Amino acid sequence: MKFPHYLINAIFYMDNSLNPPKIYLIPTVLAPDTQLLTLSPQVVEVILKLKKFYVEDLRTARRFISSLNLGIDISSLHFFELNKKTSEGSVAHEMRGEKSDVGIMSEAGCPGVADPGAVAVKIGHKMGWKIVPIVGPNSMLLALMASGFSGQSYAFNGYLPIEKDKRVAEIKRLEDLALTKRQTQLFMETPFRNNQVMKSLIEHCSPNTNLCVATDITAETEFIKTKTIAEWRLEVPDLHKRPTIFLIGDIRNNS
Amino acid sequence: MKFPHYLINAIFYMDNSLNPPKIYLIPTVLAPDTQLLTLSPQVVEVILKLKKFYVEDLRTARRFISSLNLGIDISSLHFFELNKKTSEGSVAHEMRGEKSDVGIMSEAGCPGVADPGAVAVKIGHKMGWKIVPIVGPNSMLLALMASGFSGQSYAFNGYLPIEKDKRVAEIKRLEDLALTKRQTQLFMETPFRNNQVMKSLIEHCSPNTNLCVATDITAETEFIKTKTIAEWRLEVPDLHKRPTIFLIGDIRNNS
Repeated sequence: MKFPHYLINAIFYMDNSLNPPKIYLIPTVLAPDTQLLTLSPQVVEVILKLKKFYVEDLRTARRFISSLNLGIDISSLHFFELNKKTSEGSVAHEMRGEKSDVGIMSEAGCPGVADPGAVAVKIGHKMGWKIVPIVGPNSMLLALMASGFSGQSYAFNGYLPIEKDKRVAEIKRLEDLALTKRQTQLFMETPFRNNQVMKSLIEHCSPNTNLCVATDITAETEFIKTKTIAEWRLEVPDLHKRPTIFLIGDIRNNS
Repeated sequence: MKFPHYLINAIFYMDNSLNPPKIYLIPTVLAPDTQLLTLSPQVVEVILKLKKFYVEDLRTARRFISSLNLGIDISSLHFFELNKKTSEGSVAHEMRGEKSDVGIMSEAGCPGVADPGAVAVKIGHKMGWKIVPIVGPNSMLLALMASGFSGQSYAFNGYLPIEKDKRVAEIKRLEDLALTKRQTQLFMETPFRNNQVMKSLIEHCSPNTNLCVATDITAETEFIKTKTIAEWRLEVPDLHKRPTIFLIGDIRNNS
């Protein structure tokens, strides 16, 4: 059976399901002035060909694209704000109207991981769009690489609870998982609470437990150290307002 | 108190603990002929300044460096083989002798994650070396970004068991974790067993469960799709010998 051509055309102009656009997941920098070192050439290639971007914050996105010095007229680009406040319905509505490829950019690092970009990706899969992840910096991955802990089995747990008792209970649960399941545990906190987290870790983990602190990743001030809790107690780093990934791991036979 | 200079010299030449070298964790490509697109400029910068590399396979490493066309005389470089067969003792011995920075490269993607490079990183931390992770392609991260699943909470579980009953039990355990804990589950298999894994997933997961299949990441033939098990049953992709990451996730409120 052949589908009547006028119907194909009607459907094509009704929505984009017959010729779905692509979503490019475009990483941005983790630290200022690192765009020339840490972004893959793919990032530039893709930004140069796109006219529409779904971004977590308009100002950061414009500033990031300008910082690449690609000669792009920012005012010729279209932006759609996609953040915690954007409803899934309005993302779906925006996407149904797209006729061309779009890029997704988050505030820092790789979009789609722990940020609102994931919603657009989910809808994209349902609409049959092609999703293209672009290589770039991700603090969880870089911290894991540099920790020396097992990468055969690991879990990222997002943000710790803010309330102290709950935070301590969660830290103990993660320490237990790391040692009994041999699953490296990654977690983080909003940077202005990092010192409290470090204090909880030092006070409540076993002296022999190995902790990696990975701070200011890719910046000049990058600091990545794996030590036992007993060793950390001797010299506690100041992590206030410095983006940090914490990792608890097992270093026995970790290859 | 001033430390006598002859003693400093003696210690310096005895080992490298006073002026420890750096370890650069250097990513390589995931797919052939993608070096110009997927590697960060940092990769080239670092390779140009190093003379010694710890590599998973000598031939792949030499071929990779040549492929960058940097005008490097490969025969002037030094290589130390660091793979599953290398004992921790021999890595420590090699490292104690280093006077200059070294790079670690694995077979594909980022070193230190699920490969023997982690042993050298662990020893490096103990010896007080600085560990510098370099940005590059990682199939787990790219798959997670493109899956549309939650990146707030995820776990990588390495390889599934080979034996069929155990594999099915593990798949059911991971499906349960993904749905009850809302933790995205990533896993893989040696590429020639991918079709068996896909069969087990389709037969044993619930029809409503969401599965992402991410294959040939960064290659021309890249294929990344998230669908329900019921949808996958209608059209099963051939994944034989194609590097693949499987993800089971929950797509409710996944941002």
